[in-house]
Amino acid sequence: MNRLQKQIGFIVEVDKLKHVLRQSVLINDRRRENDAEHSWHLAVMAMFLSEHVKEDNLDLFKVMKMVLIHDIVEIDAGDTFAYDEEGYEDKEEREMKAAQRIFNLLPTDQAIKMKELWLEFEEKATPESRYAASLDRLQPLLLNYHSEGHTWKMPGVTSEKVYERMAVIKESTPQIWDYVVEIVEDSIDRGYLKR
Amino acid sequence: MNRLQKQIGFIVEVDKLKHVLRQSVLINDRRRENDAEHSWHLAVMAMFLSEHVKEDNLDLFKVMKMVLIHDIVEIDAGDTFAYDEEGYEDKEEREMKAAQRIFNLLPTDQAIKMKELWLEFEEKATPESRYAASLDRLQPLLLNYHSEGHTWKMPGVTSEKVYERMAVIKESTPQIWDYVVEIVEDSIDRGYLKR
Repeated sequence: MNRLQKQIGFIVEVDKLKHVLRQSVLINDRRRENDAEHSWHLAVMAMFLSEHVKEDNLDLFKVMKMVLIHDIVEIDAGDTFAYDEEGYEDKEEREMKAAQRIFNLLPTDQAIKMKELWLEFEEKATPESRYAASLDRLQPLLLNYHSEGHTWKMPGVTSEKVYERMAVIKESTPQIWDYVVEIVEDSIDRGYLKR
Repeated sequence: MNRLQKQIGFIVEVDKLKHVLRQSVLINDRRRENDAEHSWHLAVMAMFLSEHVKEDNLDLFKVMKMVLIHDIVEIDAGDTFAYDEEGYEDKEEREMKAAQRIFNLLPTDQAIKMKELWLEFEEKATPESRYAASLDRLQPLLLNYHSEGHTWKMPGVTSEKVYERMAVIKESTPQIWDYVVEIVEDSIDRGYLKR
């Protein structure tokens, strides 16, 4: 196979991300969101919120590539619900295997770069990956807030756990953190979320 | 409203793009694709196919921003089917009005930049916008090819019209054009598309 054939093979394969359903629901009709829609939403958010990142010289282009591919491993590994502690036990292993299979459909140079980018996202050790993770936390928070706390109604979810999960927002984008606290507290007042 | 509130207002508004349905269907279960999924797919394609662009010094970051926002006007204006000649008559006016309303939810500086970027996409006068348009043609072609020509079965669609619509691919990414001809001809042979 030549480079173009490999690239097209990858592009056709990732169409499947549109079938991986998340727990979050859309604001208007409350159907479950899929990973492709979610990834698009994060990339759009990345474009408009980058002025709030604490660090200077953020590589926004990298952040956008990162959020676009961050969930591709879930084509094989499935979506693990944020508050599912059991599901998290073998998440890393399942996702690593998926990254090998799916990114390796690309020409080798592109496959290597994508695995590096995905690992950078997972490790959250750079300003770019922390900003990407912040967006990945903020987006479902917005959907929850505008759907009367849909996902927060699931067993075991409390405001303490939500705050814990949102902590990376505080690190990466402190101004957005103030806004998060505002809407979490409002959600508790409205009965969308248990204290 | 401060900047962050405006940005969040825009981000919540564009959740609606996930409800704008296209004529194309997904490969696996043949449900109709929505604009958010489509835009995500284009942005991913942009990342991996840019080496095939004819011009040097392509601003790929700009292309990615362009494809992520190129369909946002359809939240108000709706999707116009590629081969619907009547629908195209007032498309420009409807979309211009939509761009004004939706992008103006953002802080002014960001709104201006986004309207400029969207107009650049529409005009197809730069290497970036031609590459974006090429991807916007190639993506539904791939979905059609892998769903037995789903959209091509609609009245009035012929290979001549498909080639006409794909012409920008020839201009922007000639190597991909050769591949397009291959799969269009194969689609005719398989009975997915009328000659």
